[in-house]
Amino acid sequence: MNIHLTTRSTDAASGSIGETETLYCTFSSLELENGEVLSPFTIAYETYGSLNSLRDNAILLCHALSGDAHAAGSDRVTGRTGWWDSMVGPGRAFDTDKYFIICSNVIGGCRGSSGPSSIDPATGTPYGLGFPVVTIGDMVNAQARLLDHLEIQRLLAVAGGSMGGMQVLEWLVSRPGRVRSAIPIATAARHSPQQIAFNEVGRQAIMADPNWKDGSYYSGPPPARGLSVARMVGHITYMSELSMERKFGRRFRENRRPFKFTADFEVESYLHHRGTSFVERFDANSYLYITKAMDRFDAARGSRLHEALAGSQAGVLVIAFRSDWLYPAHQSRELVKACKLAGLDSTYCEIDSTYGHDAFLLETDEETRLVRHFLENVKRGRKDNIYGR
Amino acid sequence: MNIHLTTRSTDAASGSIGETETLYCTFSSLELENGEVLSPFTIAYETYGSLNSLRDNAILLCHALSGDAHAAGSDRVTGRTGWWDSMVGPGRAFDTDKYFIICSNVIGGCRGSSGPSSIDPATGTPYGLGFPVVTIGDMVNAQARLLDHLEIQRLLAVAGGSMGGMQVLEWLVSRPGRVRSAIPIATAARHSPQQIAFNEVGRQAIMADPNWKDGSYYSGPPPARGLSVARMVGHITYMSELSMERKFGRRFRENRRPFKFTADFEVESYLHHRGTSFVERFDANSYLYITKAMDRFDAARGSRLHEALAGSQAGVLVIAFRSDWLYPAHQSRELVKACKLAGLDSTYCEIDSTYGHDAFLLETDEETRLVRHFLENVKRGRKDNIYGR
Repeated sequence: MNIHLTTRSTDAASGSIGETETLYCTFSSLELENGEVLSPFTIAYETYGSLNSLRDNAILLCHALSGDAHAAGSDRVTGRTGWWDSMVGPGRAFDTDKYFIICSNVIGGCRGSSGPSSIDPATGTPYGLGFPVVTIGDMVNAQARLLDHLEIQRLLAVAGGSMGGMQVLEWLVSRPGRVRSAIPIATAARHSPQQIAFNEVGRQAIMADPNWKDGSYYSGPPPARGLSVARMVGHITYMSELSMERKFGRRFRENRRPFKFTADFEVESYLHHRGTSFVERFDANSYLYITKAMDRFDAARGSRLHEALAGSQAGVLVIAFRSDWLYPAHQSRELVKACKLAGLDSTYCEIDSTYGHDAFLLETDEETRLVRHFLENVKRGRKDNIYGR
Repeated sequence: MNIHLTTRSTDAASGSIGETETLYCTFSSLELENGEVLSPFTIAYETYGSLNSLRDNAILLCHALSGDAHAAGSDRVTGRTGWWDSMVGPGRAFDTDKYFIICSNVIGGCRGSSGPSSIDPATGTPYGLGFPVVTIGDMVNAQARLLDHLEIQRLLAVAGGSMGGMQVLEWLVSRPGRVRSAIPIATAARHSPQQIAFNEVGRQAIMADPNWKDGSYYSGPPPARGLSVARMVGHITYMSELSMERKFGRRFRENRRPFKFTADFEVESYLHHRGTSFVERFDANSYLYITKAMDRFDAARGSRLHEALAGSQAGVLVIAFRSDWLYPAHQSRELVKACKLAGLDSTYCEIDSTYGHDAFLLETDEETRLVRHFLENVKRGRKDNIYGR
């Protein structure tokens, strides 16, 4: 086959993967879980490292709500660094000297894979709300199609945090034969009402923006203020009380404009900045579609999780963070319990971080130690519980 | 004097205060902390029970963000029950057979006291953002003017939860000679960046609503969707993860409309309901003014809290709730520590509730036991620490 299965690695000395490029693969159609068909559909993806001759060293990384296919390295065009760069590269946790790493943008997204901002071939204009409802299962089905295309039958591992962790669980449940090991991080088998509630506030903020126009805004200004408010809510939930205290305290901003309701405190201007900069790179309709997919996801399919996991023989490394109150550690502990009940070789690590949910992107030193060791053992085929305490 | 110092109590058998009526008192002017003058200004208030001949049995209740002067009983006009009804009445925690209870709406509010929706005498139209910035200190100064009017020199107690607790602390710090005891509940001496951040999201949601029109919306439709989103964020923070789980779980709504982003889950429709019903009784500009007053409040005046409290000799009962993550118990413990360092006779009770921040309105059985005992001892002049464990 003539597709890219080796990625340039120009900066090996520093452990960076170097310059990277997003690739695109278009397929004729995808049957969705609700029975609708998405046709055609495109997957944006990147790969790092080289697929070995046995084609058994592939690892799929699944991104979170606002992530994309650019997990590592420096984008050839924009120079932007990947969202998990410190975890991927020569000698890093996902060691590109050993493994072939794949990361693809979820369908429903807006970073190159098909989503509501894509052109509907039936109309020649963006889908908007005409885009079908997608689920975490559909995202994984699309990833499986990409793996078929890359002629990878079985993954050495599938890993991801937050919504990425939901995809990891979906792989375990829906395609147990294709996954040798799984690393769900800071995630949940299903959303609690509090998690649903935070997402719903974000959706309401977007839909309250008059520029949203029932999702048909692509020929005019986007619902930027609504999306910005949604992102601000998100950012609060990604941090911990303590990490906010350390980062901002009650410091006042300098050069405040003399307006009654301007940002007085640094924490306010930080949130504004995160909100407004998000608007430049994310589509509001994708935010609606993806958060709904998360809220509706239930790895247990309404039944008991360990029964849903019974078909798998994967090794599982579950990682949670003590200060993460959006995806609290008890959800990960329930996950480990279900893995154990299902007879899976599973390990639980709760990292004592103060970063809150963001820790899965920040505590990469600790994650590196855990993931590197875990993957080495999976590669060697060891099944003993190496991290049990 | 001819003002109401006795309130009807028509339903003594059940412990309810019975029918109540909001009263209004207009004063010529109030000098604000920022140097501006509010002239005239009106205070809406209610009283329950009778002031004794020594005028020393008065208790001031301070309401939270969205509260008002109607703390107890059934409103004569609307029939609405007061926000702390189960705490106020004959034989209740704030026993109207013994005490004279006062509750007034904060200035900056929209429930009868002067605020941004009041008519600016200079223009004959609502103030909007022309209303001066008000602080928790200004709210307390206005309450002090009401007490002057009622010829009450010294309060037996001042009590309140959440923002009401901030007013309680402000009374202790700014007018130590007028307060014999204080009951701050589920509150903080100053907001953490997380608390500021949640308020800021609410403000941004309001100001993002095109109907807000820089606060000049009183002749047209109000920024209802923005205010509704703000209230939804608030409601999430008022509940605990567990109380949401118990109340809603992941139950789906019946009779869902076939729209992609409608509320699937009961928790979503609950939040919608709380958001939209709030709009009917609350002014969006007041939401901005009051949340800013909370965020800027610092009982310690930027210094150490125990130094700010040094002028007081009040007995203090601090109550917190274990599942309250908006005003976490550690903030109350810091408060107690400062009281102790200031030499105040102070007691701390952490109630093991699952209701989150809402607990201060819901755990009234537990609060009743604590408050009743505390007030009896204050009345008797006892200074020993009755609740120390």
